[in-house]
Amino acid sequence: MMKHVHYTDVDLEIPKEEGIKDLKIRWLISKKDGAEHFAMRLFEVKQGGYSPLHQHDWEHEVFILKGEGVARTKSKEEYFKEGDVFFIKPMEWHQFINTGKETLKFICVIPYK
Amino acid sequence: MMKHVHYTDVDLEIPKEEGIKDLKIRWLISKKDGAEHFAMRLFEVKQGGYSPLHQHDWEHEVFILKGEGVARTKSKEEYFKEGDVFFIKPMEWHQFINTGKETLKFICVIPYK
Repeated sequence: MMKHVHYTDVDLEIPKEEGIKDLKIRWLISKKDGAEHFAMRLFEVKQGGYSPLHQHDWEHEVFILKGEGVARTKSKEEYFKEGDVFFIKPMEWHQFINTGKETLKFICVIPYK
Repeated sequence: MMKHVHYTDVDLEIPKEEGIKDLKIRWLISKKDGAEHFAMRLFEVKQGGYSPLHQHDWEHEVFILKGEGVARTKSKEEYFKEGDVFFIKPMEWHQFINTGKETLKFICVIPYK
């Protein structure tokens, strides 16, 4: 039977990664559920928090659910808001910073290889 | 440079599939953008509309953005609302019906094989 939950029913975890501030993650759909090709995660970033400025050899597909902020690369910054979509290719530098007043929430899908 | 758009900037298309009512799709991230492993789509279903009751050999990872409705399988129906998450495994029957008063909007990620 299909998995059906509300996102708040999924544990809010602190990722073990350097360069993070006030950021937590919910693994909404992952290998534990039988997902073989990609995982859907939901990030929650408090006011002033951020993900690390980093790069890696897998892509991100991101959808901004709530809040606003700035997406940084090595060369520029772009303002984003609710309803924005990002496709970050493998090895592209990226960082998401909550510059707004509410908790930033976004979906980020990554591949399993 | 990473793709960054608002979802409403992406074309709202009518899928060529039987069994659909008042349903349109935006391919937010797809092969056209260089995505090799999976595609992120956003569905918009008007009041009373639905996706087909069908099955196929690939999975869905779904996040309900706005609205409410009923998810049908061959054997049961489940009410859903904003913030709900579905993982539909390959070959599971499924249908999404907008039983609410506003346009239903949800993310649906599918693999490329």
